[in-house]
Amino acid sequence: MANCEAEGCALGRALRMGMVGGGRGSFIGAVHRRAATLDGGVELVAGAFATTLERSRSMGRELRLPDERVYGTWQEMLEGEAARPAEERLDFVAVITPNDTHYPIARAFLEAGVHVVCDKPMTTTLADARALVGVVEATGLVFALTHNYSAYPMVKQARHMVQHGQLGRVQKVVIEYPQAWLLRKIEDEGHKQAVWRTDPRRAGAAGCMGDIGTHAEQLGRYITGLEIDEICADLTTFVPGRQLEDDGAVLIHYVGGARGILYASQICTGAENGLAIHVYGTEGAVAWRQEAPNHLHFWSAEGPEHILKRGGSDLCPSARRASRVPGGHPEGFVEAFANIYRNATDTMRARLCGREPAALELDFPTVYDGARGVYFVEKVVESARSQQKWLPARWA
Amino acid sequence: MANCEAEGCALGRALRMGMVGGGRGSFIGAVHRRAATLDGGVELVAGAFATTLERSRSMGRELRLPDERVYGTWQEMLEGEAARPAEERLDFVAVITPNDTHYPIARAFLEAGVHVVCDKPMTTTLADARALVGVVEATGLVFALTHNYSAYPMVKQARHMVQHGQLGRVQKVVIEYPQAWLLRKIEDEGHKQAVWRTDPRRAGAAGCMGDIGTHAEQLGRYITGLEIDEICADLTTFVPGRQLEDDGAVLIHYVGGARGILYASQICTGAENGLAIHVYGTEGAVAWRQEAPNHLHFWSAEGPEHILKRGGSDLCPSARRASRVPGGHPEGFVEAFANIYRNATDTMRARLCGREPAALELDFPTVYDGARGVYFVEKVVESARSQQKWLPARWA
Amino acid sequence: MANCEAEGCALGRALRMGMVGGGRGSFIGAVHRRAATLDGGVELVAGAFATTLERSRSMGRELRLPDERVYGTWQEMLEGEAARPAEERLDFVAVITPNDTHYPIARAFLEAGVHVVCDKPMTTTLADARALVGVVEATGLVFALTHNYSAYPMVKQARHMVQHGQLGRVQKVVIEYPQAWLLRKIEDEGHKQAVWRTDPRRAGAAGCMGDIGTHAEQLGRYITGLEIDEICADLTTFVPGRQLEDDGAVLIHYVGGARGILYASQICTGAENGLAIHVYGTEGAVAWRQEAPNHLHFWSAEGPEHILKRGGSDLCPSARRASRVPGGHPEGFVEAFANIYRNATDTMRARLCGREPAALELDFPTVYDGARGVYFVEKVVESARSQQKWLPARWA
Amino acid sequence: MANCEAEGCALGRALRMGMVGGGRGSFIGAVHRRAATLDGGVELVAGAFATTLERSRSMGRELRLPDERVYGTWQEMLEGEAARPAEERLDFVAVITPNDTHYPIARAFLEAGVHVVCDKPMTTTLADARALVGVVEATGLVFALTHNYSAYPMVKQARHMVQHGQLGRVQKVVIEYPQAWLLRKIEDEGHKQAVWRTDPRRAGAAGCMGDIGTHAEQLGRYITGLEIDEICADLTTFVPGRQLEDDGAVLIHYVGGARGILYASQICTGAENGLAIHVYGTEGAVAWRQEAPNHLHFWSAEGPEHILKRGGSDLCPSARRASRVPGGHPEGFVEAFANIYRNATDTMRARLCGREPAALELDFPTVYDGARGVYFVEKVVESARSQQKWLPARWA
Repeated sequence: MANCEAEGCALGRALRMGMVGGGRGSFIGAVHRRAATLDGGVELVAGAFATTLERSRSMGRELRLPDERVYGTWQEMLEGEAARPAEERLDFVAVITPNDTHYPIARAFLEAGVHVVCDKPMTTTLADARALVGVVEATGLVFALTHNYSAYPMVKQARHMVQHGQLGRVQKVVIEYPQAWLLRKIEDEGHKQAVWRTDPRRAGAAGCMGDIGTHAEQLGRYITGLEIDEICADLTTFVPGRQLEDDGAVLIHYVGGARGILYASQICTGAENGLAIHVYGTEGAVAWRQEAPNHLHFWSAEGPEHILKRGGSDLCPSARRASRVPGGHPEGFVEAFANIYRNATDTMRARLCGREPAALELDFPTVYDGARGVYFVEKVVESARSQQKWLPARWA
Repeated sequence: MANCEAEGCALGRALRMGMVGGGRGSFIGAVHRRAATLDGGVELVAGAFATTLERSRSMGRELRLPDERVYGTWQEMLEGEAARPAEERLDFVAVITPNDTHYPIARAFLEAGVHVVCDKPMTTTLADARALVGVVEATGLVFALTHNYSAYPMVKQARHMVQHGQLGRVQKVVIEYPQAWLLRKIEDEGHKQAVWRTDPRRAGAAGCMGDIGTHAEQLGRYITGLEIDEICADLTTFVPGRQLEDDGAVLIHYVGGARGILYASQICTGAENGLAIHVYGTEGAVAWRQEAPNHLHFWSAEGPEHILKRGGSDLCPSARRASRVPGGHPEGFVEAFANIYRNATDTMRARLCGREPAALELDFPTVYDGARGVYFVEKVVESARSQQKWLPARWA
Repeated sequence: MANCEAEGCALGRALRMGMVGGGRGSFIGAVHRRAATLDGGVELVAGAFATTLERSRSMGRELRLPDERVYGTWQEMLEGEAARPAEERLDFVAVITPNDTHYPIARAFLEAGVHVVCDKPMTTTLADARALVGVVEATGLVFALTHNYSAYPMVKQARHMVQHGQLGRVQKVVIEYPQAWLLRKIEDEGHKQAVWRTDPRRAGAAGCMGDIGTHAEQLGRYITGLEIDEICADLTTFVPGRQLEDDGAVLIHYVGGARGILYASQICTGAENGLAIHVYGTEGAVAWRQEAPNHLHFWSAEGPEHILKRGGSDLCPSARRASRVPGGHPEGFVEAFANIYRNATDTMRARLCGREPAALELDFPTVYDGARGVYFVEKVVESARSQQKWLPARWA
Repeated sequence: MANCEAEGCALGRALRMGMVGGGRGSFIGAVHRRAATLDGGVELVAGAFATTLERSRSMGRELRLPDERVYGTWQEMLEGEAARPAEERLDFVAVITPNDTHYPIARAFLEAGVHVVCDKPMTTTLADARALVGVVEATGLVFALTHNYSAYPMVKQARHMVQHGQLGRVQKVVIEYPQAWLLRKIEDEGHKQAVWRTDPRRAGAAGCMGDIGTHAEQLGRYITGLEIDEICADLTTFVPGRQLEDDGAVLIHYVGGARGILYASQICTGAENGLAIHVYGTEGAVAWRQEAPNHLHFWSAEGPEHILKRGGSDLCPSARRASRVPGGHPEGFVEAFANIYRNATDTMRARLCGREPAALELDFPTVYDGARGVYFVEKVVESARSQQKWLPARWA
């Protein structure tokens, strides 16, 4: 359960969560609700789930929220909730809307003193991303970005192994992310997700690379700690008439000489959600696949392949903390997602209790990760349009 | 969300759940809580989590329950909750205690008008099991047994395929269930689970076969629908001084001529939770492994191997209902467990609303499954002790 | 290349092989020829490939043998070859015929001073098997039985690990062997293999258990070194009108207390050649599957799963010797088969050169393995017919 | 057996093969010998195995060749063999030497009327490659290049499925080829293969891309039939002091708009011989891994994943012809290699018999494939050195 780690936590209550977006038909909205409440430390108390009051209310009733705490717009929610008694006010808001609205919503809630959990990519422009960094720094509030794939226990174990030298110096990183769901032009058939994700006004400058390329970039950075030096990108739109790319590949030169290949595609027939990473170092290598997330493959320069498994007593503290049931009892997507919520809300609790959050609690993607993701997208788009082979893309 | 399927469900509230057992250190207690609340339709309101008031209260506080609804014994809880106003009373109780206490607890709550979700094996004797059947029939209440493995979506799909003839006539069934956790005599080191699971007074006549053999038996029956005719069992205690068997194998003659092999063992070094089933029919075969639960392998008599995947649009309604996120986003143990709760509580809701539960809602293990499991254990123990090769074991 | 290990081997020539059986349409005949010649130390010089001279000659011509060394019966071949000059005479004969003819053919060639490589099961009766042991002992010649599955490198590695204590004391052995090829009554459609393998006069007292059950038994014995104490068998004929069983399961009590489950079936829809073994010891476990033969899975009581791979420098000498190409370059069925030939013919060479064969060369199944296989089949059939649960089956 | 398909083949004998290279310590030399003779249609009769007569003779004796047909140089062999009676002369020569010698050797034998089987990459310069094309065209002889990976049955099946529209229009191709063997600077320790493969004078302009990148390129072209339009390559030398790259990645624009990613690396810790390909089309996708070569994964745009298996009756004629044993009996590297020899030598036989080779026989990599591979290497090296992003690389 996600209580304060400290004995005698002064809070002694669930955190109060509001939600913007995540209405009917939003698969990820239900994931956020399950993930937030999985460990018992969070209560959903308010929402602006849809863009009409009627649809928002309908969702709110399904969730058994009182009508008075369900709103037709996030602005009304911000105002309405601020007007409630202190003991009812939101501790944090989850922002689960199309990309173009993340920035104004997150900014407004932060400025109102509300912590934020936000979907990725963080914003549609780098200017917005940098501005949001400023807001978070100014308010000192928690801002967590739901790069959920880096929250799987065995990903944390991989990172631990890199950090503790079990791979030696990392030389080569291969990250693949094939999906199939945009193989047909389903945005023309009214598929809600597809409509906004292929619309540059709502999704931003990139389609596939914004949606899943950012996950791939963040996963690689989380595990390896490597900084990108320069990139060479190729973006393609396979489906005729689609406004944003549905396929992309990036060659990467990392600072220090490592090499990377990252590709993401949403027209890969037969693929489901095939995020996978392979990290090769001078002394060892690891490989992990999101669709079999309870295993981490490890090779030392000599000797047999090892399969490390979630639940093993030999795992690092961060991986153990991110795991809820014994090995052999598969954990999946919702638990990984919940790990973001757990660490972010434990950090909020620490703040509310006036203590320093522990390093293990601070292990969630932040506004800086968000800004770097947006920067990556911008550079990828710039590189793809350029005849120059290598585009400097070092974050500063 | 687990509301009434019917439009305008009169209930409009979460079901109130009490819990007996599931205190600190109980891995399965936390699983029950997460599973029960995963879909938002259940609220934990009371508990007798441990065998002292102090430890029970400690758990209750972690769960943010008011002290007044946390009890030192289930009897006190039964009494205390019955004395509360009708709008606060328990809708159902989850029984998560050692096997020998299932019967008295379940009986008492049922007789008090409270629905029951109960851990397996249902009772330690067949007499108790049959008595409990009588109580359930007399009260007309819902009794759900947490044979969670049969609640995975792809298991439901396998059952659907058998029922719809895609395997032809089933001829051969192989069910394996290797675990390793009792390889050492950890009951001597105070391992809580091990202490009672190896104690015949608390676990019943069988150890391994009661704990996981019953899961294997129920999984096979759920998928194939086959009835056991006669069995030939071999039970072994590998760890010296252990009172109950830690390994067992059963040859099965099914009614109609199919053949089965079922083994369960808790001394299988390196195994985690290796439940797996292979069903061979005259026209097709399926195979499923609990540790990779999102896939179902299917072979027709001709042609290539197929891998059916959770989330696929080609799955049966029961499998689709048992799934929460798209394919490629792994679901696991907690979701399967939650499927028992969802169907059982939807059935309770239907009853509370005065409507007939739908077939899809009634898809959860019942008191009859529990009785058959206990019968299976008794027959296996009897067969293992007998010099007679084939012991009639047809349920009647 | 399969020369004498000793420097300056006096032989300096390929061994001359004759073949009985293995005519057109015999898949295993071609396997024997490829396996025998794969390492360059054997030359096929004569054959009685079929039961008419015409068909035998046709095969011989395809193989570019001179007509004069191709015969219509094995008796003619025995006589004809004996009449040739010493420098042309057969060193050994490969016997690739239905089971009922193995004994007379092998006996006759041995008595004529010709080494023998013989298909399994060795004979159709235990009396013949014991007689053949006598002949081999009396002649002192090499007799190798083609239990090829135990000749895979990673099987040798598994055996090495058991022998060297990496598994501790073996407690549990599970051997499975599902196939599908007899799912339909193809013996009625003239399928050559099926015709004789389902005919008790030619195949012996068992069908499936003789054909593949003996492989399973030998594989288990080879790896574990365990001796069977008593068995409890169940044989079933699923296909109506078939004369021999097409499915069998055996529970095993090994001397010393280990437990075994062995099943073999030829009606397992979708299966190909699914021989697999899992050996669980007190300190470690191994698992191997014939269809992925280049890998051996190993678990210690603590720590992660290991995958040992053919070609690894950490393998035992016997496994390394049985491997021809580096890891990652898959070896398969033919190479395993060739390992029997290599070791058997190197042993023959040693004899011909008057030196003691090395232990590594003597690593092939012998007439004693053959006799034990036939004994196993007889006991399985006896047990299956008996109402007695446990049938003593200790080899003496 | 690899006889003429035509009834009454006039040849009626094994083809006589000579070998240049493939001495002791050459793993691939033994592979060539096994592959050439696996199907019984080829006899090794002469060789220049090493660069001194003594070492060549030593190898020849191990192979039981008469000293008179073993030579110290290929020039002596060419001359010596040409001087023998017609009925002893070489039908073809296998060239298994470092890259820089392929051209002069192949040219000389072709000009002497001897068919050639040659290792890849074909030559070290494009000029040599084009010259060799001219020689082959002028002589009309068979020239086969041992791109053995495209000779696996399931690769042929993949190609068949692309050609027959089961994938629709191919949009995306991902080819990966990780190895680990050059992770350390073993060329400094005298590792024979490493010494010449990292020496530009002997290996050519590229290291890793020449050695295995050419396999990857040819595999992709064989399956998809796609033509490269332009490329963007990145080559890296990770091991300090090494003269040629040990890692490379290439982005590909195919003619018609498909996109490709190809990477090959020899510093991928833990990898063995990890060649794999994934081809995504508008209607289906296939995936194949060299280390599990008996399976081909197929996805249609709708429906479950299929696993097609070698030995299946549903495979294309080319795949069936390339397979020797039933499904479930694993075939591997040697069989794939032998498929090159079988088709190439059957084509030679057809020529010798004066008939047109069948399409199935002509299915082996030719001098044109070799030239394209060398062209690919040259363009990759050129692109890697260029600041221009996309380098035109269309073969003409």
